[in-house]
Order: sequence, then C-alpha cells, then structure tokens
Amino acid sequence: MKLRHLLFAAPLLASMPAKAEEGMWTFNRFPTDKVKQAYGFAPDQKWLDHVRLSSVRLAQGCSASFVSKDGLVMTNHHCVHECVEELSTPSKDYIADGFFAKAQADEVKCPDLEVNQLIDIKDVTARVMKAAEGLTDAAANDAKKAEMSRIEKECATSDSLRCDIVTLYNGGVYDLYTYKRHQDVRLVFAPELAIAFFGGDPDNFMFPRHDLDSAFVRVYENGKPAKVKDFFKWSKSGTKEGELTFTAGNPGSTSRLKTIAEILAFRDFGLVKRLMYLSEIRGELVQYAKRGAEQERHSKAMLFGVENGLKAFKGEADALFAPGFVDAIKQKEDALRAKVMADKELAAKYGGAWDAVAGAVQRSRALSVRLGQLEGGQGFRNELFSFARMLVRAADEFQKPNEKRLREFTEGRKPGLEAQLMSPAPLYPEFEIFRMTFALTKLREYLGPDDPTVKLVLGSESPEQLATRLVNGTKLGDPAVRKALYEGGAAAIAASDDPMLKLAKLIDAESRTLRKQYEDEVEAVVRKNNELIAAARFAIEGTSSYPDATFTPRVSYGTVKGWQEGEKAIKPYTTFGTTFERHTGAEPFALPLSWLDAKPELDLSTPMNLCTTNDIIGGNSGSPVFNRNAEIVGLIFDGNIHSLGGDYGFDPELNRAVAVDSRAIVHALDKVYGATRLVKELTGR
Amino acid sequence: MKLRHLLFAAPLLASMPAKAEEGMWTFNRFPTDKVKQAYGFAPDQKWLDHVRLSSVRLAQGCSASFVSKDGLVMTNHHCVHECVEELSTPSKDYIADGFFAKAQADEVKCPDLEVNQLIDIKDVTARVMKAAEGLTDAAANDAKKAEMSRIEKECATSDSLRCDIVTLYNGGVYDLYTYKRHQDVRLVFAPELAIAFFGGDPDNFMFPRHDLDSAFVRVYENGKPAKVKDFFKWSKSGTKEGELTFTAGNPGSTSRLKTIAEILAFRDFGLVKRLMYLSEIRGELVQYAKRGAEQERHSKAMLFGVENGLKAFKGEADALFAPGFVDAIKQKEDALRAKVMADKELAAKYGGAWDAVAGAVQRSRALSVRLGQLEGGQGFRNELFSFARMLVRAADEFQKPNEKRLREFTEGRKPGLEAQLMSPAPLYPEFEIFRMTFALTKLREYLGPDDPTVKLVLGSESPEQLATRLVNGTKLGDPAVRKALYEGGAAAIAASDDPMLKLAKLIDAESRTLRKQYEDEVEAVVRKNNELIAAARFAIEGTSSYPDATFTPRVSYGTVKGWQEGEKAIKPYTTFGTTFERHTGAEPFALPLSWLDAKPELDLSTPMNLCTTNDIIGGNSGSPVFNRNAEIVGLIFDGNIHSLGGDYGFDPELNRAVAVDSRAIVHALDKVYGATRLVKELTGR
Repeated sequence: MKLRHLLFAAPLLASMPAKAEEGMWTFNRFPTDKVKQAYGFAPDQKWLDHVRLSSVRLAQGCSASFVSKDGLVMTNHHCVHECVEELSTPSKDYIADGFFAKAQADEVKCPDLEVNQLIDIKDVTARVMKAAEGLTDAAANDAKKAEMSRIEKECATSDSLRCDIVTLYNGGVYDLYTYKRHQDVRLVFAPELAIAFFGGDPDNFMFPRHDLDSAFVRVYENGKPAKVKDFFKWSKSGTKEGELTFTAGNPGSTSRLKTIAEILAFRDFGLVKRLMYLSEIRGELVQYAKRGAEQERHSKAMLFGVENGLKAFKGEADALFAPGFVDAIKQKEDALRAKVMADKELAAKYGGAWDAVAGAVQRSRALSVRLGQLEGGQGFRNELFSFARMLVRAADEFQKPNEKRLREFTEGRKPGLEAQLMSPAPLYPEFEIFRMTFALTKLREYLGPDDPTVKLVLGSESPEQLATRLVNGTKLGDPAVRKALYEGGAAAIAASDDPMLKLAKLIDAESRTLRKQYEDEVEAVVRKNNELIAAARFAIEGTSSYPDATFTPRVSYGTVKGWQEGEKAIKPYTTFGTTFERHTGAEPFALPLSWLDAKPELDLSTPMNLCTTNDIIGGNSGSPVFNRNAEIVGLIFDGNIHSLGGDYGFDPELNRAVAVDSRAIVHALDKVYGATRLVKELTGR
Repeated sequence: MKLRHLLFAAPLLASMPAKAEEGMWTFNRFPTDKVKQAYGFAPDQKWLDHVRLSSVRLAQGCSASFVSKDGLVMTNHHCVHECVEELSTPSKDYIADGFFAKAQADEVKCPDLEVNQLIDIKDVTARVMKAAEGLTDAAANDAKKAEMSRIEKECATSDSLRCDIVTLYNGGVYDLYTYKRHQDVRLVFAPELAIAFFGGDPDNFMFPRHDLDSAFVRVYENGKPAKVKDFFKWSKSGTKEGELTFTAGNPGSTSRLKTIAEILAFRDFGLVKRLMYLSEIRGELVQYAKRGAEQERHSKAMLFGVENGLKAFKGEADALFAPGFVDAIKQKEDALRAKVMADKELAAKYGGAWDAVAGAVQRSRALSVRLGQLEGGQGFRNELFSFARMLVRAADEFQKPNEKRLREFTEGRKPGLEAQLMSPAPLYPEFEIFRMTFALTKLREYLGPDDPTVKLVLGSESPEQLATRLVNGTKLGDPAVRKALYEGGAAAIAASDDPMLKLAKLIDAESRTLRKQYEDEVEAVVRKNNELIAAARFAIEGTSSYPDATFTPRVSYGTVKGWQEGEKAIKPYTTFGTTFERHTGAEPFALPLSWLDAKPELDLSTPMNLCTTNDIIGGNSGSPVFNRNAEIVGLIFDGNIHSLGGDYGFDPELNRAVAVDSRAIVHALDKVYGATRLVKELTGR
C-alpha cells in the first residue's frame, strides 16, 4: 500500500468532523481531550513532539521510524524493495535471498533512498493569503504559488533542510513544514521477498495475513551512524486485544470531502481509465518477467507497484460503484448546500461554489487525457525520458527568478531534484525499451494516430522502433553525462543532439501550455471554490476536525481489534503457526528455506500480524505502531479490503490497519536470521 | 467488429419505434412502406426472399453472402482469420503472406468454418406460451425451454439442418428459424493481414479508413462447389454519395430497451470488470507474441479479438459514462412507467415489472462473478478444457430425454456440437498453457485463495504448475481420442483418468448448481417481467417496430453519407490514393510488398472504403452492402467510433457503418493479386 501518486487529483482538502477512532491528525492540532475521554490517556505536547521526531518519511513515498539511538530506521520491505533490487546483480539476488549486514561495516548505501524528519511546523496562512488579495482566480493561484516558493526559499537555508508549504483544510490553513534531510541511508536488513510478501497479490489487502513486511536501514552522517535523540523504544510485551495503539506516518491522499462533481468525474472517467491502464501494463509485466531470471528480477518492483495500485483502485471502484454509495455522499452535500442556501448571507458568499467546481471539473475532463499523456509524461514514461525532461526544464527554469519557476524547480526543491538526477541507480536498457514502447503505444492510442503531436513524435517509426532507437542512442544512462548537461545549463542542452533530450525538447512547449491552461482553468477555480466550501462548512459545522491527507506526518489512534465479516468473526492476530499452515510450496504461498529450516527453533504461538482500528491509507506503509509509552508494538504495512473505501470515509466497524507484530520481528531476527546484533540494538537484550 | 459473446447478457429484448434509417429488421416484418415513402423503392417479398437466401451467417460469429452460382462466399478477412491461421504452419504463414488458390483444386478446407443459410421462418409463439400457462416464473422458464427443445428436435430432421427458436420482442414473439448448414467450406482468397487490417488497432472503429478486410471462401457439396440458386450479382458501377444501400447480416446484440437497472448493473459492474479483464489479457498477449515468430502467429487471432472487443467496450463505456447519457434513458423509462401507473388496468398488470427486474439484477450481481468463473468457464478457459467439459456434459446429458437437457445438448444442436468436438484444427500446447495459467490466476483472484473450490482445483500447485501439468498430461488434443470418449459415453468418461477430464468432472456439480440458481432466480424473473414491460410498451406505443438484435438475419437500409465531426466534414469515401498516403513503412501502417509493387498499375482514384447510415452492430461483420437491384456495392467490416454507443440507440447524425468498396475488391483482385479467375466469377468479365 505504498503511496499512489494521483497525478491530477486536484488539492481538494477540507476539514471533517471525526467519529470514534477516525482521523489522521496533524501534530499541532491533536485532539488530546478526545483521546483522554475515551482511553484515560492524554498525550501532551512533549509526547507528541517526541513521537513526531521519532517518526520519519521516506521521500519516495513511505513512512518509517527511528528505532535506536544510532539512527536505525524501521520500515516495510516493500518500501525499500527498489533499493534491494538496485543493490542486486544478475549473480546476487537480494530480493529472492534477503539481505543482512552481519557487521555495521557491511551496511550498503541505497542509491536513491532519502529520509525526512519533520523538525518544525509554522503557520504561514496569513502571508500566503495576503499575496493573493484582490486578484482574480488564475492570478490569485499564481500569486499564492509565487509566495509559497518565496517562503520555502527563505526557509531552506541549507541542502540538509527541506521546506514544504502544506495546504491543509482545503486552503483554510497553509503550514510551513521543515524537514531534516538524510541522504546517506544504508541497507541493514531485508528478509526474502517470499516471507516479506508471503501470499503475494492474492493476499494483498487481506486479513488474516502472514507477512514479515519489514526492513531496517540506517541513517549515516559524515560516514558514521547518525546519533538521534528521539527514537522509539521497543515494547517488551507487545499488545493485547483491545489495547490502545497509535501510528505516526504519512497518509498520502484522501477525498473525504470532495464535491460530488469531482467524485463522479473521478469514478466515471479517471478511475475507469486507470484500472484499464494498470491492468494492461500488469499483463505486459507478467509476461516480460518470463523472458528470463534477470528480467524478472529488474521488473519485480514495478510489477509489485502496479498490482498494489490496481488492487487499491479496484477496492475504491468496488466502493464507488456499490449501489447507494455515491448517493449517500450526494445527500450529505445536498444537505450542506441547503443549509447554505437557507441563510441569505452564506448563500451570497458560498452558494455558487459547488457549481463552479462542477464547471471546472467538466473542463478538466476535456483537458485531462492530453495533459496526462504530455505533461503527466504517461506517453513517454521511462527513467531516461524523465531525466531528459528534468534536464531540459532545469535549464529553462533556473534562468528565471525563484518565484516565477514551476514549483518543482524552486530553490527549496533543488537538493531533491539533484539527488534524483545524479542517482547512481542502475538502468536496464531492455526494460527501458519495454516501458517506453508501452508508453508510446498508449500515446498513439489515446491521442490517435492522426494527432499532429503523435505524428511529430513517431514520424514513420513504430512505438517499438522509436523506443529502441532512443534508448540505445541516448547517453543519459550515465550519471556523469547527466551531471555535465545539468551543470552546462541552457547552452549545453541547446547544443546536445542526444535523441532522448531532443524528444523532451520537441514536446516541451505544448506540454507547458497545456499545464498552464489546466492551472488557470481548472486548478485555480477548484482551489478558490473549495476554499469557499471549506469556509461554509466551518461556518455551519464548526472546526473540531482534521484535514484531508497530504502525504505529511499525521498521528492516529485506535485499538487492537478484529471485525465481523458477515457470519464470521475475524480475530485480530495471526501467528507463526498459522503462517506455516498457509505454506503450500508453490509461489506465492512458498515460505523461504530459512523459515522451513528454522521451524523447530520457533515458538509457533508468536503473533505474526495484527489488525487495529487506526485510520490509515496508502503512504502510511512503514508507519510504526506504538503504545502510550511510545514503545514499538508493530509496523503498519497494509489495510484490509474494507479500508480501500477509506478514501471517502472511515467505517469503524470494518476499516482496519494491518501490521507486523513487533514480537514477530524480533523472534524472526533472532531465530530465523541470527541477526543478534540487531535484536540487541532494538531491545537492549 | 466480430460478434462479441456477451456471456451473461440476459435476453432482454423488446420492440422499439424506429426513426430515420434506424432499425435491424427481420425478413418477415420489414417496413416496406417506410422505405417506399423515403426512397421511392418498395422491396417486395420476392426481393426480400432473394436477399435472405443470398445472405448467410458464419456459425462462429460473422455474416457473409453468396456472390456466385458456384457457392462462392464473400466475408471479411477478420471473419476467416482463424481458418487462415489454422492452415498456416511455422514454415508457411498465410496471415502474413495472404492466400490465393490459383485454381479451384487449390482451395483448402477450413477446419472449423460453418456457413448457415436461413431457409425458413415460422412463428411458434402460441405453442411456446401454451407450455408455460399457469406456471410460476422458474417453472415457466423451464417449461418454455423444454418446449423449445421439442420444437427444434421435430424440425431438425437431418444433420444438414439447424433449427433455432429465436426470442424476439422481449419474449413477445418466438420464431423458429431453419438454416441449411454447409460444413465443407474452403478457403479461396485472403489478402495479407497488413492490408486487410491496415492501420491495425489504432485505426480500428475509425473512419476515414483504408482496409481490404475481405476474403472469399467456397461452399462445397459432395466434394464439388455447391450450386446455389440465390446469390448477389456484382454491381458494375458501385455507389455514389447519397445512394440508397441495404445490408443483410446478423447483428449480435443490442440493448436499446433494457431497463435502467440492467444498464447500470452492466455499466458499473460487468463492463468495468470486462474492461480490466480484456486490458490485462491484451497486455499478456502482446508480450507472449514477443517470444518468437511462431508464438506471434498462433496468438494473433486471439489478440485481434481481444483488442477489437476492448475497443468496442471502451466505446460503450464512453457512451454510458458520458454525463447525461444514462439520465436520458432513465427519463424515457420514467415516462413510460408514469403512463402505466396512470392507467389502473395497466398499473395492475405491469406496474411491478421494473422493480422485479431490478431485484433480479441485484441478485445477479451477487451470483455473477462465481458463475462466470465456473459455469462461464472463465476460470479455466482454453481449448482443451472446453473439450473436456463438452465431453463430460455430453455423457451426462445424452442419457436424459431431449427436453430435459441443457439447451446446448439438445438433439437440434448435436451436429454443431459434434463438429466442434471433432475439429481437426491444430492446438498449440505452449499457448494452451499460457491461456490456462491466466485463467486460473484470475479464478484465484476473483474467488480468493481461501475459496474451497479454488483450493480443491489448485491444491498445492500454482496456476502455472497446474496448467502445465494438465496441458502436457491430457490426451484431448487428439481428435481421435475425443471421438472415442464421446462415443464411449458415460462409461468411458467415468473410466478415464485424463487429468483435464478430471478437472472438468471435479467442478461440474457446483457449476451446474450455480447455473440452475441463476436461471431460476435471475433469468426466469427477468424474462417474465421483461415480457410484461414489452406488453406495456405495445399497449402504449403500438407495434410498428423492430426487435433487439439476436445474432439472427436482419436487413437494414441507409445511404452513402459522411458526417460532421465538430468543425470537420468527414467525406464518405477513401481511395487507393489516400491509402498509399497513409503508408509509413512501420507496422501497422506498412502496406504489403504486393501493393507497393503493384502501385504503378493501380488507378489511385478507385474508392477503397466507404461509410453509410445503415444501422449495424458487432456480428454484422462480413455483411454484403447492396443496392436496390440486389447487386453488391460493398462489404461491411466495421462501424465508426460513434456507432459503439449503438447498443443503446441509433443516432442518424453520427452512427456510420464502414465497408470495403466493391470497386476496391475487384481492382485489387485484378491488379494486385492477379486473381483473374475470381474477378471473372464475380463480374462475368
């Protein structure tokens, strides 16, 4: 359940009143009283600060936590899958065999992994709002972005800081989040994929579950393990059923207060297209992997991502297409609109907002396919093209003043951009050709063979011919070449006849125009009117609430609890014993040899996975589960199938977070992997 | 646009009033007056009988026509693709190179092709209705089926006859259709795929278009070309823009009068699932073909079918998900219901029918996934499994009296069944394993790995392991083995330990139970209440109408006409010249060498494809286009993109049939292929 990147999901966030354990709370607006009332425990600011500093985000789209004073970081195996794949070679497959650094000196740097620790939150709402005063929608949108870039630049005084303005409560609040960046991140431990992802796609999003989806990396500073003040201690006893549990992580995106117009447009247009796209590339990847062991190895992470996304979207579709589901959301919206219209003043201020959003959504439908193909990059997607576009745009953008740049090229984002661009991660030409062939085929399919841009791009070549020529002809696979072009700036880019760069240049003007059109005609209108709807909601429903998820640190509370599935009661724990019972010997139900060999040494009553009522969503993968003493009791890696409707609302009867039990982690490290140095570091024993 | 098999589309047919050129008319209820009024030409019964006897159906799912007194049959290349593929070998690829029998003695038998000529239509409504008098829904459904089996058996007095009862007007009419069966069908001419399907998937369902999607086969009797009395003559001059055109063919299925409950269930559940399924298998097939030339060759027909179906369903989805489309259908339904409810007598008789259908549809949603996997065979789909199931069921069913059997095992269907079972068409074990692996993977995905039937089927094997073992272990690839088992009956089946047969036996009981449950709880209720709705509609709107399509012979009329696409006027003809302009040299826009070589000999102003306002849909592929003198002027092979919404209604402004021009066919036969004996047979010159 890694964060899914919802490319064109407009930032449609709003406040929402919470029931039961519902809520993905920010650290500066946590409902301490509510928790105290329900559980007799009141997290104070000191506790919250400690938890915030002990929790981290993986910049690539996951959550994690510090679990020792020496910078040890716990997360999911699927969050470091790409690193493990990148460190593997045709002769040494750490995905299949697992990885353990016997000594600290054996820990190996992950080419791309970056760990972010949230060290400060500051409200900058007034400043952002002031910049847009008196302007029309499109101009206000531009002005706010420029002001946000200015604030971020002032904040990012060093490459080791990342400063992001986070839009919360649908534009009601702008908070400046400052993160400490850790870029020297080394792999310490990853189990075999066969146990990390035991049950594979069939068991994904299911519970009961039996996965050791855990891994450890370590943050280094100046070549040495980083010393961290705040980290989670390890619980000695784990949890019991009914116990209070917390998670801190980075839920990616929710849509709990989207307007019905946005939800229907997503369901009937975006979602159906996405299900088809992911299904097709899944089919191609499954067969690509059959070309050979090496192809299987280097395509596995992508297949996992695709299958994971597909299953998540299918769950969303099951919810959104269920009879009555959308009607219920519409009734709530109608009720709010009726209240607004019943009050003259509110009606004058906010009454037109919903129809304005609906109009912009309609416009978005006309723009989105072309936008996705060109500006979204779907029509060209592979690593080499991404580098080419980054280089072409960096050369243009860095000539402009900071606040006039595209947001991803502002000074505050520069260190992240450079890390991506100079990444030493290996590339696989055959796989690049495969991916780009698929992308170009879809480009032609979605825009049509007679589209002038498609004709310009393909000329007289087929998608496969063009992809092959570009991938084989480009030098951008070499980080040194990318560095030289990046440092050479506009002159170097203009002078280069690298074929992939030429493609990126060829489509850039049209692509930028489309983006600007979308920003002015859709984004600006939606943003402005969703702010109005949020204000209307505040006026009618009050403010005791949490904002929609934004892939920023949040904390949630809940309890260890199963659920009732029709006639059947689902218990909240599985064990090592039930894990062995599920072993058939055929993938994905084949346990690795290490587990089969270690079986006699194992206490089969050890809890393996558990489920809790914590409110989470994609992006929360790798989040620590901890108790009121801020001790680790588990590691979030999934949600149950019901939680996939969680994008639109939380159902306390059915939605469950799924975690690896902390007792499973230490017992396996100890008895299966002989990782005693890690056990000691975690537990002190 | 070959007929798509809509597995669980309940038979929801009803009458509908027609506007403009709308209508897929039966031969015995043709609106001669209407045509006369509009075009000054009144087709009389003699003309209609001649046209009916000159038109034929390919039992596998296409339309065709007799075009010479010696049994020459014209149809689409894509309708005989499987035959051409089956006649090919690793060393001789007729798909790529085309096929032409220089002399009549070189014509080669197609392993599976069957041609049906409709020789009689008889109304048996009264007899079918009487059988069900006074019975409850489920019992009435059973009784009608039994009576239909009885009538068909009485009719099918020889293996050369096929007798089908066709349910028309939503059960308002039952007609007995008697066909003459031609099973010795030989391939005469098929061009290269590169020109038959020039533009490939990107151009599919598009116009302007440039395909020679045509082929000729010949019907034989007693080893000699069949002498046929009725056949279409070839037009000397072709058409002009605006000219009246007719088609006669077999439109597969329309849903123009489905209830809103059925349409929404299809859109939100069946259609979305189908789009995903087809997208995924498409991805797998594209990559499977990359294993090598032989794999590409033997998988091409399936890929074509999948891509064709996918594009058709996408077009349907575009229509059904377009804002307002479903609302408009709902308004029409609401208006009809209001009229029914306003009349006490009508309300009492018909008022409850819509809700009853909606209830059955809801029930269908609960049953359909499992039903599709087991009884629909999706969970096992490959050729060998189909044989296994046929054998297992034939052994059971043939022990029962005719009217108690499953409909597909009644005496009337026996000859078709035996032809399928004994087919000498080659099988490709690697492809069978590929297909069955995919099917079993979906079975596990849709029903879940913990489903008892899934566990029973897979045991401790993976889908690929099981598929490999069954395909490699079964002897059912040998027609002689199938014949022996078929003739050996129940005893032979019981004694066999063939692994594929064992699988078919393993799931048969549950599969039959599911089917019966569906028939009783869904089909019977839907059928009964749709009859009531049809009757209500007759009572209110009258009867000047045509029934929904049922893959039975229909005739439609229209004119040669382009359309307005936004700002752009689309002309109704393309030419050889524009065909050469579209050639880039890269597949699918690469013309075959034969065309490039012949270019100097060609008259580039020759019309290539044309579009007309005839009302057609999938299944009409291969239909002749003819003028008022019943002379061939074209050959239907597709509809334009707008026609894909035609399942739900006909829009005379936008919906177009797409055909190969008759002049293109003779000019290419003459100048590109040197097929002078064919040109002479067609034109007499």
